[in-house]
Amino acid sequence: MRMVDIIINKREGRELSDEEIRFFVKGYVDGNIPDYQASALAMAILFRGMNKREIATLTDAMEHSGDVIDLSAIIGKKVDKHSTGGVGDKTSLVLGPMVAACGAKVAKMSGRGLGHTGGTLDKLESIPGMNIQLSIEQFIDQVNDIGLAIAGQTKSLVPADKKLYALRDVTGTVESIPLIASSVMSKKLASGTDGILLDVTVGNGAFMKTIAQAEELAKTMVEIGRSLDRNTIAIISNMSEPLGYAVGNALEVKEAIASLKGNGPKDLMELCYGAGAIMLVQADIYKDEVTARKALEEVVRNGEAFEKFRLMIKAQGGDESYILHPEKFEVSKNIIEIRAERGGYIHNLDALAIGVDAMKLGAGRETLDDVIDMSAGILLNKKEGDKVEVGDLLATVYTNKTKDEYRDIVKHIQETFIIKDECPKVGNVILKVIR
Amino acid sequence: MRMVDIIINKREGRELSDEEIRFFVKGYVDGNIPDYQASALAMAILFRGMNKREIATLTDAMEHSGDVIDLSAIIGKKVDKHSTGGVGDKTSLVLGPMVAACGAKVAKMSGRGLGHTGGTLDKLESIPGMNIQLSIEQFIDQVNDIGLAIAGQTKSLVPADKKLYALRDVTGTVESIPLIASSVMSKKLASGTDGILLDVTVGNGAFMKTIAQAEELAKTMVEIGRSLDRNTIAIISNMSEPLGYAVGNALEVKEAIASLKGNGPKDLMELCYGAGAIMLVQADIYKDEVTARKALEEVVRNGEAFEKFRLMIKAQGGDESYILHPEKFEVSKNIIEIRAERGGYIHNLDALAIGVDAMKLGAGRETLDDVIDMSAGILLNKKEGDKVEVGDLLATVYTNKTKDEYRDIVKHIQETFIIKDECPKVGNVILKVIR
Repeated sequence: MRMVDIIINKREGRELSDEEIRFFVKGYVDGNIPDYQASALAMAILFRGMNKREIATLTDAMEHSGDVIDLSAIIGKKVDKHSTGGVGDKTSLVLGPMVAACGAKVAKMSGRGLGHTGGTLDKLESIPGMNIQLSIEQFIDQVNDIGLAIAGQTKSLVPADKKLYALRDVTGTVESIPLIASSVMSKKLASGTDGILLDVTVGNGAFMKTIAQAEELAKTMVEIGRSLDRNTIAIISNMSEPLGYAVGNALEVKEAIASLKGNGPKDLMELCYGAGAIMLVQADIYKDEVTARKALEEVVRNGEAFEKFRLMIKAQGGDESYILHPEKFEVSKNIIEIRAERGGYIHNLDALAIGVDAMKLGAGRETLDDVIDMSAGILLNKKEGDKVEVGDLLATVYTNKTKDEYRDIVKHIQETFIIKDECPKVGNVILKVIR
Repeated sequence: MRMVDIIINKREGRELSDEEIRFFVKGYVDGNIPDYQASALAMAILFRGMNKREIATLTDAMEHSGDVIDLSAIIGKKVDKHSTGGVGDKTSLVLGPMVAACGAKVAKMSGRGLGHTGGTLDKLESIPGMNIQLSIEQFIDQVNDIGLAIAGQTKSLVPADKKLYALRDVTGTVESIPLIASSVMSKKLASGTDGILLDVTVGNGAFMKTIAQAEELAKTMVEIGRSLDRNTIAIISNMSEPLGYAVGNALEVKEAIASLKGNGPKDLMELCYGAGAIMLVQADIYKDEVTARKALEEVVRNGEAFEKFRLMIKAQGGDESYILHPEKFEVSKNIIEIRAERGGYIHNLDALAIGVDAMKLGAGRETLDDVIDMSAGILLNKKEGDKVEVGDLLATVYTNKTKDEYRDIVKHIQETFIIKDECPKVGNVILKVIR
């Protein structure tokens, strides 16, 4: 079997056999197949697609390209949530503690941010002392103890995806549904959870730009999970504007703390209640989502969700005084206010633009080697549908960059706020559920 | 400018700017752009194509990626012919001397064979002592002296194409018209000739499988040449069966010698007369192709074409006694006759199958590191349209492989001869001329 023939087969639109797919994944991980053949195949897959069987085989081959984690030592049903990425998406920080407070076991493997999208691990690391590199034993013990752990993947988990994802990122082959689906699902399956809740984001701040694309990706992933007997459900959520008001690592942790105390933004809380209710049913804690949602609202109200978050931070070495007194988080040297230059209603607050601007202010990475400024970011004050008068505060920019560096970025953020006389129609954050 | 954005632009079907194309070619030759990004771009170009301007810029950037040869020291008009590759294609060995004998200056840079297609340089090297690595000075002096030289490209000629072609060969990105056209034309333009005659082969033994594809490639290359003020004409020729009867290096040289002495196969001679007449008009030796053709027929008849060939071999250090006494060429240890198992007419003698079988017998390379057996190959005795009786000789196989190695190959050649009762329609070798 020759890799060039596999590339040509896919290029010509033929189905790849299971043997061809496994030959590629094994050869690529072993180093026998070079990057330049893998990238050509990825591009051919991007153009030609893959059918259900090919995607299932690719997922399975990637899942078993390294260690597969056995979470059977955790007592109770394990649930995990995965988002395909967004701007201001601190859902895991809020949803995890809420669901754990209701009795489910949340064993979450998470990732880092790249480009305009943030990563849960980076956000957690804005809390001094926080350790996200847990051993499997520590991870299992912590979930058994307090019901909740969020950690980075071990190096030996799904090495095929690590290598392929890094390659896709620099070869223009990220936006392929078969490749995204197999990447996400191989990691989720290898990390050993029972129930999987997928949050497929859609809009200009997400990989999927249209609801049709997002639905195809969601259905593809749900099918993979089902075919391998995992309880898998997907939510399609709106990522045309940032989620919540905070974009940037420490800023988002502070917003997550406020949310766990009952003062969360409407869109973020809707997503957490909707996703959490599904997860609690997946975990067999509740029979129906209406009851589950009431339980979630209750653990926010009575402080149990916040308490779970504090316990997790403490268990992972984080300084809990920052959680109890969020004003301790370091604040950027430069704080710039952006104010409305006319009155009217805010329209279409472009999530991609805000995400890229936050990255440029220091909150994200352009390449994996960049160092993040935890205090940098953008705190929105108004979002789509809000009414403003001339001079009203639209957003506050936090950065340690120099004025020469941030001037154009601030100007661009100002321009991103489109204000018109008519009021736009603002929809729900959860657009659809794929079961 | 980032290479990943260039890949994404092409992937999304957008035109690349001149700056983007030059950034890619320069970066790839300099080693700043890795193979895995170049292969992803090549695959995106294969799917999305390129417009005239993009192809012209790519050709120009490749042409100037290394040295450009100045042939102005050669007195008279220089003409060159290039074939897109085939099986049994010894045209250059016959056509070059014929055209030179009529007074044109043939300054031909040629290449090696790969896969099922042979290369002119390999064929020439079956003549003991033959030197195909001439310096530019030697090359120019020889063309001035005797009107004819065939040599390998210097290493510094079009390095972008050398690197990109090797990559395309292993990443399933060979069959792209913009990439083939820019590869061929960048080399022809850099080698400094005035008139360019392109032989675009079509059929299962060629890269282009349909006449429509071949015509598109031919038109694309003619346009590039014209836009850069070179007299460029393309022939589309049939490569659904091998050209002539000999396939294999020394076997083909012997057939070329016979052809130059007036005993050439009909299809090969038709191609040489047709192409040669165009080249003589391109070289301003004759005003019209009818007169030019008569001159070509005359130099074959009176021995001047053969004499040109002998002079070239001698000038390049080859042992001319092999040319004068072709029986001196070493013959393979094993000679196997293939005979008709039924009577009827030969149909559809698959050029690709014969080319691959000849390669496996030792006549070609599967990878660039393979060593060629100069004596190995297949001598056809019958071709499409020939009538045969049971027991008639169809072909003779020459090889130094062991019986265990050649048994299946011989069986496959036997199977390649399809014999039916009805007589097939046999067409001309020159299918079209694109001016």
